[in-house]
Amino acid sequence: MIFKRLYDDGLAQASYLIGCAQAGEAVVVDPLRDVDQYLAAAEAEQVRITAVTETHIHADFLSGSRELAARTGARLHLSAEGGPDWQYAFAAADGARLLQDGDEIVVGHVRLRAMHTPGHTPEHLSFLVTDGAVATDPMGIVSGDFVFVGDVGRPDLLEKAARVEGSAEAGARVLWRSLERFRALPDHLQVWPGHGAGSACGKGLSAMPQSTVGYEKLYNWGVGAGSEAEFVRGVLADQPEPPAYFAEMKRRNRAGPPVLGALPRPARLAPAELAARLEAGAVVVDIRPQAVAAAGRLPGTLSIPLNKSFVTWAGSLLPYDTPFYLVTGDGPGGESAARAARELAMIGLDHVAGWVGEEALEWWAAAGRELAEIPHLHPRDLARQPGAVVLDVRGSAEWRAGHLPGVPNIPLAELQARAAEVPAGRPLVLQCQGGGRSHIAASLLQIRGVEVANLAGGFGAWEREGLAVER
Amino acid sequence: MIFKRLYDDGLAQASYLIGCAQAGEAVVVDPLRDVDQYLAAAEAEQVRITAVTETHIHADFLSGSRELAARTGARLHLSAEGGPDWQYAFAAADGARLLQDGDEIVVGHVRLRAMHTPGHTPEHLSFLVTDGAVATDPMGIVSGDFVFVGDVGRPDLLEKAARVEGSAEAGARVLWRSLERFRALPDHLQVWPGHGAGSACGKGLSAMPQSTVGYEKLYNWGVGAGSEAEFVRGVLADQPEPPAYFAEMKRRNRAGPPVLGALPRPARLAPAELAARLEAGAVVVDIRPQAVAAAGRLPGTLSIPLNKSFVTWAGSLLPYDTPFYLVTGDGPGGESAARAARELAMIGLDHVAGWVGEEALEWWAAAGRELAEIPHLHPRDLARQPGAVVLDVRGSAEWRAGHLPGVPNIPLAELQARAAEVPAGRPLVLQCQGGGRSHIAASLLQIRGVEVANLAGGFGAWEREGLAVER
Amino acid sequence: MIFKRLYDDGLAQASYLIGCAQAGEAVVVDPLRDVDQYLAAAEAEQVRITAVTETHIHADFLSGSRELAARTGARLHLSAEGGPDWQYAFAAADGARLLQDGDEIVVGHVRLRAMHTPGHTPEHLSFLVTDGAVATDPMGIVSGDFVFVGDVGRPDLLEKAARVEGSAEAGARVLWRSLERFRALPDHLQVWPGHGAGSACGKGLSAMPQSTVGYEKLYNWGVGAGSEAEFVRGVLADQPEPPAYFAEMKRRNRAGPPVLGALPRPARLAPAELAARLEAGAVVVDIRPQAVAAAGRLPGTLSIPLNKSFVTWAGSLLPYDTPFYLVTGDGPGGESAARAARELAMIGLDHVAGWVGEEALEWWAAAGRELAEIPHLHPRDLARQPGAVVLDVRGSAEWRAGHLPGVPNIPLAELQARAAEVPAGRPLVLQCQGGGRSHIAASLLQIRGVEVANLAGGFGAWEREGLAVER
Amino acid sequence: MIFKRLYDDGLAQASYLIGCAQAGEAVVVDPLRDVDQYLAAAEAEQVRITAVTETHIHADFLSGSRELAARTGARLHLSAEGGPDWQYAFAAADGARLLQDGDEIVVGHVRLRAMHTPGHTPEHLSFLVTDGAVATDPMGIVSGDFVFVGDVGRPDLLEKAARVEGSAEAGARVLWRSLERFRALPDHLQVWPGHGAGSACGKGLSAMPQSTVGYEKLYNWGVGAGSEAEFVRGVLADQPEPPAYFAEMKRRNRAGPPVLGALPRPARLAPAELAARLEAGAVVVDIRPQAVAAAGRLPGTLSIPLNKSFVTWAGSLLPYDTPFYLVTGDGPGGESAARAARELAMIGLDHVAGWVGEEALEWWAAAGRELAEIPHLHPRDLARQPGAVVLDVRGSAEWRAGHLPGVPNIPLAELQARAAEVPAGRPLVLQCQGGGRSHIAASLLQIRGVEVANLAGGFGAWEREGLAVER
Repeated sequence: MIFKRLYDDGLAQASYLIGCAQAGEAVVVDPLRDVDQYLAAAEAEQVRITAVTETHIHADFLSGSRELAARTGARLHLSAEGGPDWQYAFAAADGARLLQDGDEIVVGHVRLRAMHTPGHTPEHLSFLVTDGAVATDPMGIVSGDFVFVGDVGRPDLLEKAARVEGSAEAGARVLWRSLERFRALPDHLQVWPGHGAGSACGKGLSAMPQSTVGYEKLYNWGVGAGSEAEFVRGVLADQPEPPAYFAEMKRRNRAGPPVLGALPRPARLAPAELAARLEAGAVVVDIRPQAVAAAGRLPGTLSIPLNKSFVTWAGSLLPYDTPFYLVTGDGPGGESAARAARELAMIGLDHVAGWVGEEALEWWAAAGRELAEIPHLHPRDLARQPGAVVLDVRGSAEWRAGHLPGVPNIPLAELQARAAEVPAGRPLVLQCQGGGRSHIAASLLQIRGVEVANLAGGFGAWEREGLAVER
Repeated sequence: MIFKRLYDDGLAQASYLIGCAQAGEAVVVDPLRDVDQYLAAAEAEQVRITAVTETHIHADFLSGSRELAARTGARLHLSAEGGPDWQYAFAAADGARLLQDGDEIVVGHVRLRAMHTPGHTPEHLSFLVTDGAVATDPMGIVSGDFVFVGDVGRPDLLEKAARVEGSAEAGARVLWRSLERFRALPDHLQVWPGHGAGSACGKGLSAMPQSTVGYEKLYNWGVGAGSEAEFVRGVLADQPEPPAYFAEMKRRNRAGPPVLGALPRPARLAPAELAARLEAGAVVVDIRPQAVAAAGRLPGTLSIPLNKSFVTWAGSLLPYDTPFYLVTGDGPGGESAARAARELAMIGLDHVAGWVGEEALEWWAAAGRELAEIPHLHPRDLARQPGAVVLDVRGSAEWRAGHLPGVPNIPLAELQARAAEVPAGRPLVLQCQGGGRSHIAASLLQIRGVEVANLAGGFGAWEREGLAVER
Repeated sequence: MIFKRLYDDGLAQASYLIGCAQAGEAVVVDPLRDVDQYLAAAEAEQVRITAVTETHIHADFLSGSRELAARTGARLHLSAEGGPDWQYAFAAADGARLLQDGDEIVVGHVRLRAMHTPGHTPEHLSFLVTDGAVATDPMGIVSGDFVFVGDVGRPDLLEKAARVEGSAEAGARVLWRSLERFRALPDHLQVWPGHGAGSACGKGLSAMPQSTVGYEKLYNWGVGAGSEAEFVRGVLADQPEPPAYFAEMKRRNRAGPPVLGALPRPARLAPAELAARLEAGAVVVDIRPQAVAAAGRLPGTLSIPLNKSFVTWAGSLLPYDTPFYLVTGDGPGGESAARAARELAMIGLDHVAGWVGEEALEWWAAAGRELAEIPHLHPRDLARQPGAVVLDVRGSAEWRAGHLPGVPNIPLAELQARAAEVPAGRPLVLQCQGGGRSHIAASLLQIRGVEVANLAGGFGAWEREGLAVER
Repeated sequence: MIFKRLYDDGLAQASYLIGCAQAGEAVVVDPLRDVDQYLAAAEAEQVRITAVTETHIHADFLSGSRELAARTGARLHLSAEGGPDWQYAFAAADGARLLQDGDEIVVGHVRLRAMHTPGHTPEHLSFLVTDGAVATDPMGIVSGDFVFVGDVGRPDLLEKAARVEGSAEAGARVLWRSLERFRALPDHLQVWPGHGAGSACGKGLSAMPQSTVGYEKLYNWGVGAGSEAEFVRGVLADQPEPPAYFAEMKRRNRAGPPVLGALPRPARLAPAELAARLEAGAVVVDIRPQAVAAAGRLPGTLSIPLNKSFVTWAGSLLPYDTPFYLVTGDGPGGESAARAARELAMIGLDHVAGWVGEEALEWWAAAGRELAEIPHLHPRDLARQPGAVVLDVRGSAEWRAGHLPGVPNIPLAELQARAAEVPAGRPLVLQCQGGGRSHIAASLLQIRGVEVANLAGGFGAWEREGLAVER
């Protein structure tokens, strides 16, 4: 059996290519829109992708299922479970096969048996995978957003992101029943989840790529919960704010994402032209590393470093309806611009209208103009300035678990909408857990004219210095 | 003075970046649509592109002037000469400055004086370039399609490509008067033409990138022609067939080519999907080297190797209104697919809908299916088969200058339109000068079911073997 | 816990980066010489590599442990088990820590406990991995070449590759005792082996990247063997011929592979220069895909396509002491040449002295010279020619399991040494299982002047055609 | 005639590929060690490089002639002029043909006639190039370091760089006689020099790639000088300090540079390992753009931005005998590290032992350590601090032409050797013409513990502000 996990760091998302070498066929589960990776994997394994499926209607990225089917000629297999509100609108038009609990996708000797595991979403399927060439029983379960390593899929997204009132608790109870089926599986089964650490589809996901049923029974708080009541309480507590774009993704994934062809690639702009558009009010994002951007960036640009959290914050802070621009550290090849555009396309932010490299900063400086810096303030120095205005931009659950004395909280994802709450007219010190989110927040407020600094090391450093904490 | 020639091998075309280091400004003359190269050149020279101009309304590629202006904020400078039929339709909308004979484009200390030099086209400008920092007189002339190294711009395109009856001879006489102005320039002036060897905008262009007025007076047949009558006769004789797409280019360049943003990049397809589309009748082009493609390619694919002549034959043989596909020798990066797409975009063939690598051939062969070969036949073997049906696909002027006894001529550019003239029901040997065009023709006729072979080495080898020639 | 599997397709080899996010530290197990991948992985996970270890002295690739330690400053941890003949000669000089059964490597909260599991080799260690942040018991076992998915590490390499008489059976019995310890582990433990399908370190490895103790107990023939006698018989039967370079690897890995710095990159040669060296007797390898190379390659070149089997056959057929050359399908970037050089460096074939692209074939053909083809013969056509001389180049175990009537066997790995046994003076049809190895063999014998053809589809196609088989 | 100028921005150096399309042959004049570019050019033009020559023994880069001959099989053609001290030591061993005034290199229809033009060096040859296919007289002259656009080759290098006493004036007189031959050439001849603006082989080179004999007679001060006395005075006045490595290059180029094979590529290091080596005293160079490096770099690193001046300053400031390291803005591909290593190899600095990307700065900052900044001071602010200690690091000729009142001069190229002259114990403001060289100098002195600032815009800005200047 051919089994390839394709993991996207930016989305903390796993898709799977599962196939049969003898038959030269494979199925892909939960593909992203960047489908070149599946074509390359299939070529490397010398299989043909004949089937494409997904565990559920995703909220955190645009599905690549239609894209992949278009590029390979493979058939779509989509969930028919979950009731009338959760049916794929494009299934009939695309000639998709509809799957119900117990149905099987067959590729050569390999079989994926659909198991309806609602809770995270009503239509959610998991797949029990059997390598018929050597075994009669399954080897593992592709669990999507049902069971993660160390956590379970959150049932509250529908209520929080899509505003379906009361659905969170109902979902939690449904999830509990799905978990009962999971616990009945053999201990030695492998568990192949849809997300790893950093995903907003849960709250305590491990960085481990996979696990086993037996291990999760021992160490996954949700799988091992003692009672339904305890579980429901636990699974609804302290979930992070879902990124702003989740509702939009869900809507698009049900309606059917458009087929792109190749991923978009932004065009390079001359420094002067970028400056002209920036001055005309365009949104410009500096994607260079934080330490570099903090030291000097074009005034008026938002700083969202192209690291693992890039997609999360880009999805929350960038406009879905107007073009925007990138400042990079690239030479003529535009490598990081292309990478950023790829990641943005994963969540449907296809309107990157241009990029520049650091020649734009050189040009700006050569014209005698200043770059914008985000100065660092060390915890000890802050402690000596009791009057300083500090703002905590972590999630509200983090804030509740402990914060600097007297410091208010506006989560970064909400900062644009709640800008009016930001104390005006005084220097502001931004703070998060480690200094990453507060850096982004500082660049955002600096654009609005606020004098900002970033608390070096964030709440983590504050604690390590042994300073007073309020809970 | 900064002076950079940017030469495109596929189009045999030169554009120029000319600037002033002290002022940090530059103008670009005759840009292609792939404007990244000018941005990179400007960055390397630390100048800002403030002006964009072109010598005339091009027939052999889509102008990149609007694209470059959009990416840099530079102002367009366009010819106002040539009468009402030859005015740029988008000039006013784009806020372009209109140029008349004697007008100057100024970038810092550098001046480009427009010189109206009609003949190739009515609105054609050349530019006398003076480096005001060190000299009072010009250093050279950007001559566009007016004077090439060893040849002059052909005045018959309008009649042949755009079907303006009688315009060829009138243009030739106008060109003669323009050449009188050229001959009056000092011998030491450099001549920077718009094309090199291989361009269809003339018939005898040298591969030399540039020349001087004095040298051209000595060795350019047109500049040195003894009389108007002799010149007109010479310039209208034996011009090659203009590629089929020239008329389309001219129309688009006057109307205003759309601004692309980044160049299109084709998407990779799975082998099975490519095969499915090929079988459904899609146009598929194999761009691998000739020797490789001749040895085995997917049946039904056209072979146009990605070499210097790629754009010429692609423009003549590929559809402007429907998507088509590429077979390449690429790995996952798709380097040659991207290069081909770039070259095709230069002439507005933006509809490359997908590509595959050689895994498609592996896959085809693994399924037990045959690849299509184009066998070679050596001149001596052909000579021994007096009954063989041979077709000469060179230009008609080449054919007239000498050909195999009794062998008819259909130029490759006309082969699709004149397919009915191709002898049917018998094996066919294709032949050109060196074996390149006849290879393309062989792949084209093979698609139509003709049994073909390619005469190895073409007419050149035939002559070298000392075989009989008919004139 | 951070856990990253880095898999090399050419070697079918897995190395692991295992770390602790909180502490920002990680250990790498069984690194290859191409250590950039571990640096990139560590950067992506924001950990520092502080420890490097390996499960055993490898026979199938040059260890990258010293290379990685040199690039990161990490400490080496090496097995002290296995007796005096199996000690790392460079351990003291490198300041390595020596590991015995029960010793632990600690990176932050994560612990790797060494478990002495001899059999494949005497000093072999496996590592039980515990994520101390969430659990007190292990999550899985890094099993190296001890237990694979579906198979166990072969104990006969020492005897066959290193010529240690009688060691195979002794090793098999030691391995049985190691397996007893394995069977005592909990079913839910993950198993992370050192190899996947295609490795010559076993005979029936699955393509699955990993498994669990419970699943292997059910479906791994070796883990589930009923008795020591049955196991010993089974594990020694039908093992494939070890590649010729295994003994050399083992010797180098014990002595200490030299630290490379960056991987070697071959230089591009002009076609004429490559041809001159080829004519002077240099070894030249065509690495293009099989279908392409079969259709036409430079006469005198060996064809070893750059696919998953490349390293195996390159290691068996290329010289370790003299420079050799590559023919590729590359453009100026030399991508596949660099990839091939990287793969060759993994097994210490560092002497790639130059490469050419397909311009060399064009140049060759333009000079009027023929390319060498390897024609295909279909099984049915062969069957109709009972007098044809056929040679089976599969492994001897494959041959014994069934072959064409009357057809002798020389495994490809032994073909150079046993060339004298090849029937002379008559056309030869080469045959293997699917047509890949026989293609390489055909190119090899063609160099020696034998007239060859390749049986299309090999023994597999023969069987599918329903033709007679001899066992 | 095929004619391709290959220009290297870092060295401001031009080499030429000149060939005959009909014969398919070409000669390369003055190749660099990065010979891939000539192979690619030859492939693009479909010619074979059959001859390699050079105009003289270069002082500013390592010759690539032997490298190119080794990769192509071409024959070397080397000057036999200049007397016994100026003979190529490896000529006989390499089977080179020796050239005297009037000798010709023939490639197909194209002829290069050697013209002995001493002055810059005693053995210097120029080449008159005739396209025999269309002309009987030359089209132009490859002038090496004899005549540039706007200047002539300096005759004082031998005295200044190689310490040959009294040779400067003698060379100037010899050069005058060579110029007399140049002035006798026809006005319309093209002039193809060996260097452009920025080269230290002259003092006033134009950025123009080429010129004509007639234009140079009008506007080149040296070609047009009125008398030998005037010329000798002029050519010896105000020549810039030759870079420290010139003497070394000359010695190596006469002895014969070693053949590299492929260019060296540095290995990536983990941040911690780079830091360890830096702390152990290794030389580490930050090659990121100036604005970025000024804002924050690893303490102890030299900042030499990878721009057009990189090679000049690297050659002057980096050690030839010990390994050194690079800090880049690169991702995993290491593009700029490879580019820097390529440029360094051009002058024989082959010992780049490793590189890191900006993850090293992130890692440094994450460990709570400060980055080193180079603050900017604006001219007006400096003017208000009359007591500030300023140091001018421009060339001495620049300093003599005008400088800040009372400010002493140590050229950057001499700063390491004359470090003892730098005022100690007080903050220092570094200054050059535009702020580039003083930035490098600031990083150099900061390593030695000096508190530094960089005068923004340098002497240029000072003048533009209308502040007092001393001459």
